[in-house]
Amino acid sequence: MSTTTHEVPGISHILDAEKRIFGKVHRTPVLSSQNLNELVGCSMYFKCENLQKAGAFKSRGAVNAVFSLDDSHVKNGVATHSSGNHAAALARAAKLRGIDAHIVMPSNSSKVKIAAVKHYGGKITFCEPNLASRESTLEKVLDATGAFEVHPYNHPLIIAGQATAAKELIEATGKLEIIIAPVGGGGLLSGTALSARFFSIGTKVVAAEPAQANDAWQSFTQKRFVPSVNPDTIADGLRTSLGSLTFKIIMENVDDIVTVSETSIITAMKLIWERMKIIVEPSSAVPFAAILEGNFNFKNKKIGIIISGGNVDLENLPW
Amino acid sequence: MSTTTHEVPGISHILDAEKRIFGKVHRTPVLSSQNLNELVGCSMYFKCENLQKAGAFKSRGAVNAVFSLDDSHVKNGVATHSSGNHAAALARAAKLRGIDAHIVMPSNSSKVKIAAVKHYGGKITFCEPNLASRESTLEKVLDATGAFEVHPYNHPLIIAGQATAAKELIEATGKLEIIIAPVGGGGLLSGTALSARFFSIGTKVVAAEPAQANDAWQSFTQKRFVPSVNPDTIADGLRTSLGSLTFKIIMENVDDIVTVSETSIITAMKLIWERMKIIVEPSSAVPFAAILEGNFNFKNKKIGIIISGGNVDLENLPW
Repeated sequence: MSTTTHEVPGISHILDAEKRIFGKVHRTPVLSSQNLNELVGCSMYFKCENLQKAGAFKSRGAVNAVFSLDDSHVKNGVATHSSGNHAAALARAAKLRGIDAHIVMPSNSSKVKIAAVKHYGGKITFCEPNLASRESTLEKVLDATGAFEVHPYNHPLIIAGQATAAKELIEATGKLEIIIAPVGGGGLLSGTALSARFFSIGTKVVAAEPAQANDAWQSFTQKRFVPSVNPDTIADGLRTSLGSLTFKIIMENVDDIVTVSETSIITAMKLIWERMKIIVEPSSAVPFAAILEGNFNFKNKKIGIIISGGNVDLENLPW
Repeated sequence: MSTTTHEVPGISHILDAEKRIFGKVHRTPVLSSQNLNELVGCSMYFKCENLQKAGAFKSRGAVNAVFSLDDSHVKNGVATHSSGNHAAALARAAKLRGIDAHIVMPSNSSKVKIAAVKHYGGKITFCEPNLASRESTLEKVLDATGAFEVHPYNHPLIIAGQATAAKELIEATGKLEIIIAPVGGGGLLSGTALSARFFSIGTKVVAAEPAQANDAWQSFTQKRFVPSVNPDTIADGLRTSLGSLTFKIIMENVDDIVTVSETSIITAMKLIWERMKIIVEPSSAVPFAAILEGNFNFKNKKIGIIISGGNVDLENLPW
């Protein structure tokens, strides 16, 4: 696959990604809770990407992209703009390959996220906290450094990397009736939908999104791209708009998108912490929030849930 | 093994326990964190009993004890006094066997712990929050019900059950140079020391204890039983005194006991939450606190750590 193509990843690209990231990211555990299953009346299998390297599924796509590139592409390093998990994941992947990572971060990024990027040796350039400033600052960084841009979600190599999480989930659980993933930019959801299509024929793919950042739901129901405008949700990983490629893959491969309230997200997050003893970030709690809200047909079903990450500021919890 | 004996468990009792609890408790995962390893300069393998049924290692001993008893012993159910994890674990084990569990709990027990006992159908009798009231109330309950008392730690069946955690840890990691466990009543520590002795000859066993509840350290260094008097530690699982049997096993099989400050416990707990994305209770953080304090020789060593449980009141965190 060319590094500049925008084609939809095929089965071979996901299998390639799987080989490429082997040993460089964790094969994360799949956990269940009898207690939570009894509470909601279905069998849930949580793929724990919160236990992934750098604390999120983003390490999969970042490692796949960074290790796919030719030496000539990466001799000046890689770059991206991100306030969150992609920043740390890209910095880590670049460090593994021994190249520079230039990360443009909004000045209001959380201290925890900034510390994570620095921990992996990422070179941070701060910008104003808006998309225009992020993009223009990244342009300047790309011009100045000659680094190769690695987009957080709208690229086939990123999507193929993220797809490996659902592939592993399916291998661990056997046939699932439904897989639910959260949707922000759509990289994880696109990868999840493709893996379900290739490796678990007949499994429905449902996306869950905060009602207060419902651009993917609008795009999906209106069958046209709708951008995210002033998203106001605690699920900080899900505020971004879909990309051209992720929108296309989602329209063709996702069965349903449902939205949830902020209250449900916090309730779901706290229940997962309390009952499963794992730390998940608000974005990760959105699929379970959709089950709690009961806004799709899940009763008595065998359901896979992608827990996207666990990077939370412990000093600032929502309860 | 008789249900009333106070003999030291042998290798066969641990193997029996392993078979007896199979399928009734989790074989919990062993997790590592490169980040924490780099921070302290050793290789740590965390046996995650926080992910155990009822959220603590106590489920092992409780299931082993409850399923060892003859029908004649348990026709009137089982009973104990406990403010914590043993209460929920015993209630759960009794429910699995289809018998009653009578639990004497201090009136100031945490809401979370009371809710857990109720969830598993335990019949709670509240008492004053002191040992005299706990013991006299339990006597009354035993007289009134004819239930069989299952002590939280000072019994070979309990110790043999707890020993299975270290056995599984050793099987998962291969030879360890050191295993560290926290010490309260000494059931987990006794079982850990016996499993190291039987299944990993040459592995040192170190116990970690809060300095503000240092009765085990006093007992160990003075070679005579010293009771716990007014323990004042956030590690609520480690406030109890050793028992006669656990004292004997610890004196014969533990290599060292080290104590840690309250500040170190909180720092260790927060680091585990932040970097490993798992929820551990303060008692579980005590061994890692001992490594942070550097008060024994652990540098560059391969170390197993028993994470004892994950039952925490999320509304009341120590930071």
